Amino acid sequence: MVQWNKQASERQIRLQAASSFARGKYVDARDATALLEAVLRPGDRLCLEGDNQKQADFLARALTQVDPTRVHDLHIVQSGVTLPEHLDLFDNGIARKLDFCYSGPQGRRIARALEKGRIELGAIHTYPELFARYFMDLTPKVALIVARQADRDGNLYMGPNSEDTPTIVEATAFKDGIVIAQVNEIVDTVPRVDLVSDQVDFIIKSPNPFYIEPLFTRDPASITETQILMGMMAIKGIYAEYGVQSLNHGVGFPTAAIELLLPTYAGSLGLKGSIATHWMLNPHPTLIPAIESGWVRQVYSPGAELGMDAYVAARPDIYFVGHDGELRTNRMLAHNAGHYACDMFIGSTLQIDLEGNSSTVRVDRIAGFGGAPNLGADARGRRHTSPAWHKAGQEEATSKPRRLPRGRKLVVQIVETFGEGLAPTFVERLDSITLAEKTGLALPPVMIYGEDVTHIVTEDGIANLLLCRGPEEREQAVRGVAGYTEVGRARDRKMVEALRERGVIRRARDLAINPLDANRRLLAARSIKDLVRWSGGLYEPTGKFRNW
Amino acid sequence: MVQWNKQASERQIRLQAASSFARGKYVDARDATALLEAVLRPGDRLCLEGDNQKQADFLARALTQVDPTRVHDLHIVQSGVTLPEHLDLFDNGIARKLDFCYSGPQGRRIARALEKGRIELGAIHTYPELFARYFMDLTPKVALIVARQADRDGNLYMGPNSEDTPTIVEATAFKDGIVIAQVNEIVDTVPRVDLVSDQVDFIIKSPNPFYIEPLFTRDPASITETQILMGMMAIKGIYAEYGVQSLNHGVGFPTAAIELLLPTYAGSLGLKGSIATHWMLNPHPTLIPAIESGWVRQVYSPGAELGMDAYVAARPDIYFVGHDGELRTNRMLAHNAGHYACDMFIGSTLQIDLEGNSSTVRVDRIAGFGGAPNLGADARGRRHTSPAWHKAGQEEATSKPRRLPRGRKLVVQIVETFGEGLAPTFVERLDSITLAEKTGLALPPVMIYGEDVTHIVTEDGIANLLLCRGPEEREQAVRGVAGYTEVGRARDRKMVEALRERGVIRRARDLAINPLDANRRLLAARSIKDLVRWSGGLYEPTGKFRNW
Repeated sequence: MVQWNKQASERQIRLQAASSFARGKYVDARDATALLEAVLRPGDRLCLEGDNQKQADFLARALTQVDPTRVHDLHIVQSGVTLPEHLDLFDNGIARKLDFCYSGPQGRRIARALEKGRIELGAIHTYPELFARYFMDLTPKVALIVARQADRDGNLYMGPNSEDTPTIVEATAFKDGIVIAQVNEIVDTVPRVDLVSDQVDFIIKSPNPFYIEPLFTRDPASITETQILMGMMAIKGIYAEYGVQSLNHGVGFPTAAIELLLPTYAGSLGLKGSIATHWMLNPHPTLIPAIESGWVRQVYSPGAELGMDAYVAARPDIYFVGHDGELRTNRMLAHNAGHYACDMFIGSTLQIDLEGNSSTVRVDRIAGFGGAPNLGADARGRRHTSPAWHKAGQEEATSKPRRLPRGRKLVVQIVETFGEGLAPTFVERLDSITLAEKTGLALPPVMIYGEDVTHIVTEDGIANLLLCRGPEEREQAVRGVAGYTEVGRARDRKMVEALRERGVIRRARDLAINPLDANRRLLAARSIKDLVRWSGGLYEPTGKFRNW
Repeated sequence: MVQWNKQASERQIRLQAASSFARGKYVDARDATALLEAVLRPGDRLCLEGDNQKQADFLARALTQVDPTRVHDLHIVQSGVTLPEHLDLFDNGIARKLDFCYSGPQGRRIARALEKGRIELGAIHTYPELFARYFMDLTPKVALIVARQADRDGNLYMGPNSEDTPTIVEATAFKDGIVIAQVNEIVDTVPRVDLVSDQVDFIIKSPNPFYIEPLFTRDPASITETQILMGMMAIKGIYAEYGVQSLNHGVGFPTAAIELLLPTYAGSLGLKGSIATHWMLNPHPTLIPAIESGWVRQVYSPGAELGMDAYVAARPDIYFVGHDGELRTNRMLAHNAGHYACDMFIGSTLQIDLEGNSSTVRVDRIAGFGGAPNLGADARGRRHTSPAWHKAGQEEATSKPRRLPRGRKLVVQIVETFGEGLAPTFVERLDSITLAEKTGLALPPVMIYGEDVTHIVTEDGIANLLLCRGPEEREQAVRGVAGYTEVGRARDRKMVEALRERGVIRRARDLAINPLDANRRLLAARSIKDLVRWSGGLYEPTGKFRNW
């Protein structure tokens, strides 16, 4: 007789083992490590909620304290590996295998741990890809999650920071896994129920509020005139040219510049209402002036941003908010929206090769992908049209003849030809290839493949890869906007001029933009303080950004 | 002074107008139409929950009764347009614009209404695409949803049939829209909370249980030997060849045949455990023998299937179930899983042209797409590897040289050369082009574009489009498996033979399959009754399928 409920039986055994620590669902913070030892088994797949922003940091610390003879060889499956504790788990043998999306500050340590063989790397994913595997072959056995509040019945409130939680819990709780939540406080009634108690097994009030990172704030004071020039070219040569209405911006200074140029430069071009109306975007403070100037119809956010809660709550016609008045976020739904309902993704990267492949990996650092591979990929299942999507598809058809018309997403890389430390952005060979060889990765980590990119914007011009009629033209189009990097200097001048005549490459002057006009005075806000002013005092920057 | 909470104010006005009918959240069924007249305004975007399977049929009928001078020009945004009432709304002027995914039985009526100008068609979407637009530019103002039970506080229970509901409500409730639910019954305590009362404004106990369609049941008795032959070729030539572990099956007899050949034919090839272990799939009754024989590790389902509830509840190690013991489904998450975490999609279609473009549209019928465009598209954001994905990518590289390796999803069309009524499946020109011209559609409705297809399987053989070195070879590969259709007869024999020598086309004998072995005795179950027996009596087929 086959047993078909092994998972449920095993769950009961683990819950039983934990029951001595729990009063109902509630467990004292001092018993956190003992609770984890009771419910975890060697080799378990575990999601220790590390999101793009919020972190189950208390549970992470508690997990580093378990006895590695009892709990070892865990397989960590979580989107963000960003706290030191996440890597400590591998150093002390509690965890062995890793599947993740984004590492940010831990990029160097992951690269080192890989080289030393301390981490067995499954894969680096883009967000919805890892979420997809939660329901296929990487379902977590235990999820350690984080919320703001729990009520007496065990319902959780996350406010603006749901992020990954509903998706993690959906996969874990409905496959007989165990869900443990750390919460900042326990209250009688939560302002709204973001997760029902049915899906939560244990709740611990953590000694301190959970850690959260302000990832999406760019100080306007740091935006350079080069970035402003790039922003002007992008607005005139892409946003206006294609009539881009629905879009996602990556995080970076060039796109922050564009956000701040909408009410000013784009306004002077008469573009208000015809571009950049619908957004999938975290609550970027730099979007405040565009919102206040009436440019933005709607924003759906994958997560929140520190300091923006009060502003967002006061702009419910723009953002998605609950009846309690606070932002609601969901990374899975937002990335699906970005994939299928955005005409354009525009973002930065660290390296671009001659095919247009891009990567944020350096030889000693694996930063992960985050959302870029998903957002920066043509949604080939898309079947609705829009002017921008249609025009991009028509342009692509010049190089790829088709019997049936089809549109295409715009995928734009906006980069300066030289990046941080004057390292050239354009390279013959991505560092990620070297890293893959060194660490035995199955595939070199590529953020966006060249065949998925439609445009590259630099201070040198815009290369429209849709119009390139083959690999040679594509290479010269890349070289043609690569400025004084070695890749740029090795261009074939004749071919580049021919591409320029055909409009494949467009310089600032081809767009009737005078580089001397690229002035910081064009920015709707030139400092964090300006943003606070624009928001009527609602935006409350964290200390890090308070420089007045 | 700009007002930033117009949507919330308007919501309050509408709730106020409805308050005379409601006791708390509860409204009497007799007041349903009056409630709808109170909360709806001309031009509203409305989701009248028509899913792939469950239907808010009572609310649909109530909506057809509203006064069209008060409620008119609604913009319907819902995945399934399958009830007659859904079209009645357009006939009587209550609705004007339509954005949807799947129409099934209403395909003819939609085509007629389009021609007569009664429907202004936005677009035909694939599921996650429409869900994406719910958060961007097609957010519903009012959602009419359906659940099994409500408790006294207004929490809803959907059991195995959540389907689209969580996604619809997420978009509506968090953008100050109004959510009205019909429920089969009101109880003191629901077995689990599938939707929290915070997100529901009004609840009506409907006079009858909601309508639900059994879409995913295929009677093994109707499987032909031709389909068995195709199934054998697919198993040997694709499943085994690539080592396909994670997959989605479309609905149709050829894939039902494959499900029933796993324990028998595939078993005899020694493939158990190495193929078809992880599934994104509705609970197909025809998968029961494979599950019972230990082939299947895990299944995640977008929706339920009538008659399968008890079986699924008894197999929690395979399916995703709640702590109440019942299946949990979510179409958005399932289609994301299908997109990003499946190595293969295999499904049928009605017409295929010389490029491999496919469509289920006939001149007089728009069936919609459902999930096929999403599932049948390469996930270009995917960054994890698997043997099947890797091999498909390597094969593609033979025709598309790349500097960096990349895998690819297998997208297989499995069709007989002649379909229903002996209409040829292979055509020079898709009917959908004619229909688009006739009805003024922006794009001819294409289910899967040829450039996204990797293999076509017919009784005549397997065409591997990945290995084709250009449009001419591709055309001959299509013709080469098109049998005695006109398209097949017009093949270039020499080129087809050359393709066969290169393994681009493989016939049954190339796979060492004797067509005479394709016998119904190979099916693990040859009738619905056999399936009931395999399930130990847990599968309870609906009347329609009880033919003993």
